[in-house]
Amino acid sequence: MTAHVRAGLRQEVLDANLAIPQVGLATLTWGNVSGVDREAGVFVIKPSGVPYEDLTLDHLVTVRLSDGAVVDGDLRPSTDTETHRCLYLAFGSIGGVTHTHSTHAVAFAQARRAIPVLGTTHADTFNGPVPCTPDLTAEQCAKDYEYNTGRVIVDMLNGDDQRAAEVPAALVANHGPFTWGSTARTSLEHAIICEAVADIALHTMTLSPIAPPPDHLLDRHYTRKHGPDAYYGNPDMTAAPG
Amino acid sequence: MTAHVRAGLRQEVLDANLAIPQVGLATLTWGNVSGVDREAGVFVIKPSGVPYEDLTLDHLVTVRLSDGAVVDGDLRPSTDTETHRCLYLAFGSIGGVTHTHSTHAVAFAQARRAIPVLGTTHADTFNGPVPCTPDLTAEQCAKDYEYNTGRVIVDMLNGDDQRAAEVPAALVANHGPFTWGSTARTSLEHAIICEAVADIALHTMTLSPIAPPPDHLLDRHYTRKHGPDAYYGNPDMTAAPG
Amino acid sequence: MTAHVRAGLRQEVLDANLAIPQVGLATLTWGNVSGVDREAGVFVIKPSGVPYEDLTLDHLVTVRLSDGAVVDGDLRPSTDTETHRCLYLAFGSIGGVTHTHSTHAVAFAQARRAIPVLGTTHADTFNGPVPCTPDLTAEQCAKDYEYNTGRVIVDMLNGDDQRAAEVPAALVANHGPFTWGSTARTSLEHAIICEAVADIALHTMTLSPIAPPPDHLLDRHYTRKHGPDAYYGNPDMTAAPG
Amino acid sequence: MTAHVRAGLRQEVLDANLAIPQVGLATLTWGNVSGVDREAGVFVIKPSGVPYEDLTLDHLVTVRLSDGAVVDGDLRPSTDTETHRCLYLAFGSIGGVTHTHSTHAVAFAQARRAIPVLGTTHADTFNGPVPCTPDLTAEQCAKDYEYNTGRVIVDMLNGDDQRAAEVPAALVANHGPFTWGSTARTSLEHAIICEAVADIALHTMTLSPIAPPPDHLLDRHYTRKHGPDAYYGNPDMTAAPG
Repeated sequence: MTAHVRAGLRQEVLDANLAIPQVGLATLTWGNVSGVDREAGVFVIKPSGVPYEDLTLDHLVTVRLSDGAVVDGDLRPSTDTETHRCLYLAFGSIGGVTHTHSTHAVAFAQARRAIPVLGTTHADTFNGPVPCTPDLTAEQCAKDYEYNTGRVIVDMLNGDDQRAAEVPAALVANHGPFTWGSTARTSLEHAIICEAVADIALHTMTLSPIAPPPDHLLDRHYTRKHGPDAYYGNPDMTAAPG
Repeated sequence: MTAHVRAGLRQEVLDANLAIPQVGLATLTWGNVSGVDREAGVFVIKPSGVPYEDLTLDHLVTVRLSDGAVVDGDLRPSTDTETHRCLYLAFGSIGGVTHTHSTHAVAFAQARRAIPVLGTTHADTFNGPVPCTPDLTAEQCAKDYEYNTGRVIVDMLNGDDQRAAEVPAALVANHGPFTWGSTARTSLEHAIICEAVADIALHTMTLSPIAPPPDHLLDRHYTRKHGPDAYYGNPDMTAAPG
Repeated sequence: MTAHVRAGLRQEVLDANLAIPQVGLATLTWGNVSGVDREAGVFVIKPSGVPYEDLTLDHLVTVRLSDGAVVDGDLRPSTDTETHRCLYLAFGSIGGVTHTHSTHAVAFAQARRAIPVLGTTHADTFNGPVPCTPDLTAEQCAKDYEYNTGRVIVDMLNGDDQRAAEVPAALVANHGPFTWGSTARTSLEHAIICEAVADIALHTMTLSPIAPPPDHLLDRHYTRKHGPDAYYGNPDMTAAPG
Repeated sequence: MTAHVRAGLRQEVLDANLAIPQVGLATLTWGNVSGVDREAGVFVIKPSGVPYEDLTLDHLVTVRLSDGAVVDGDLRPSTDTETHRCLYLAFGSIGGVTHTHSTHAVAFAQARRAIPVLGTTHADTFNGPVPCTPDLTAEQCAKDYEYNTGRVIVDMLNGDDQRAAEVPAALVANHGPFTWGSTARTSLEHAIICEAVADIALHTMTLSPIAPPPDHLLDRHYTRKHGPDAYYGNPDMTAAPG
């Protein structure tokens, strides 16, 4: 069984998965990235439990968006596949999804707290706190658990594509971060940034009670990188500006 | 004097020992892995005090399970050998043992506290807290100290093989983590995970008082990776799923 | 359009930028170094958003000190260029400027606290606390934001070149560290040191309330490395002693 | 001017200095190791301010024990040379000295606190807390400052060679760790261990008030590695067991 996906997608997804251990975001096999082809109605994702050092193009699994069926690949897809699928279905603008168990972002998820906006490092990418979902109910755990893991994120954002674009990251309570972006690579960069701002926030909160920075500063930083007046970066030379 | 062990065991034990510094779990020579051959009634372990960068197959020491006698090898085995032997004798299902002084797991051991279950990262591998033993008594230190170091772990678990399988890790008070698994490699992976969850737990406890996650979430994560209904991983492609 | 700058300046600036990820100070593209040629009235700086691994001499941008116009280079300069320019104009003795988002220095900036002098590691380089600016006002954010980011540093130091030389680093509130020095390389070293002393200070403050060390110790350390009686280092063999 | 030192000493000192950045103990040029030749009455030390990556055998400086005169080498010795000399003169059994500014050990020094004995990781090497000196007085800073930096260590230990052997490390208040050992390499290993136990101690103290482990456990660990009944390690295969 074969499935046609747009040129380059499989390589993008492989590269983004291989980057996870290089950027220090994963212990063992804990982390996965996918990328979607909206026209073909499928996404490509890491197989379950395969060590990054063994991972090749041939191992990637192609999954149908509409029902989660595997349409290409010999291996079982990541156990988190249904979470990725839920996010793709809810947020039509996103092209890639990343899930990791990075240390500081997971600490916020385990404390069931949002990552607060404490400075421009955060505001450069996330236009608000990185929110944390409520607990999944016993029913949500019992049936379609992985799909429901995406569901609690979507519900928290009221399924609002614009909100998902402005803060392309969420923490699932007691679990960890899911991030997304226009491409697989961008979703990975948002995972890197989510971990970095969680790390800095933890140290900041050690030094001082949370005192939010002025909105005019945060708005300035977000809008100089995003939207019609952005002036950060150089087209074609910039690493996925988000 | 030679001893026959099953094919591959010595290489597995060497590889797992060489991986200790690569995964950042050891300072200097602080850490050792062994693997057992139940049929031959022996286990293979790292020699004492040999730097990882010098370690070769020829340095490994083979020790008899029944009495701890060295049956193969020119060097003295790890000082922790008797602790490994005690664990192998008590828990018939385990195939490998790892001991490290990894930073965050040792911090919990020094605080004489169990590593609590604070999220799915923990529940994916450990079906309950990683427990911490009581102090060894003066008598337990005076005679057969290393064997007694295993003894306090075995006693804490009431010698229950099933409990040892469900939480394949323990902290010895004021000392550090011992982990085990079906193979030498798996015991090392449990050491990696024990350190990772201790690190995340410490950060979580900085952010918030301990509030245990719902059991239905934890059970779901443990059972999707372990037991008859597990659906994580791909046979033959998966790094030791535990 | 070409611009002549003194021999070696472009290579110095490239090398200092490439060193940022090597010394662990930057996530993604977050960090930039510039170096000035006072005679030519220009400085050379990293382009905006270009990943370090792709950066070459050809990408560097030359900017006129007097008005910020780009006089050489095909790419847009760093968004922080106007901050660098403001610092060069205010402090005539400095030859290089570095900006990073390094974790611990940013934590102090987000807590709006100076990095206190807690020992000789700090006093070896900084003759006093690394100060933190007040918040930028809404007006300072609305217009000429990046230039005003330098302005709040300059105002905090009363434009005093001598103070800038004695403590060649400052934190911008809710943003992060800017450091400077006689060369691009030296400004980078001050960024490394600023992060290191912030890291150590955070741990120190966990252990104990701030109790300033005796001035005679701090003075001794600063003066053995700086000024007419300095006796640290070997001319021509020393890495930018500051 | 040449000076004969025993074969191998210069290489040992070079290797130990080059290992400082490899083991993560130094920022920039902050750290130095020396080794002594008691028969020749000299010690060999790193020159001041030379980056590790440029350091060669030719740069090492030989200093006379009796008066601190440079007897071989073209460069100025480390500014900390007089501290090393003071320690060699006071403690006749030591063969090497290391000084670093490693993060967690410096944090204890800046908090003016000893590193407490919280477990076997510490007791394996140090037979008691790593003590912290009182402040140097204004007089001690004004004249012979570096020699007096050693003096406060020697005074704290009452010049007792046996105490220096049992706990081969000390913190100078507001400054950082000095460690020693039978060789240059061993003094470096004690610096590595001093940093590791400081790191673990800080995390332990976050989890729990200090509750000292039982003496019988600590004694057991120290004596299994040190003294007539030691059984750790394999002669000729062991990395400097201390």
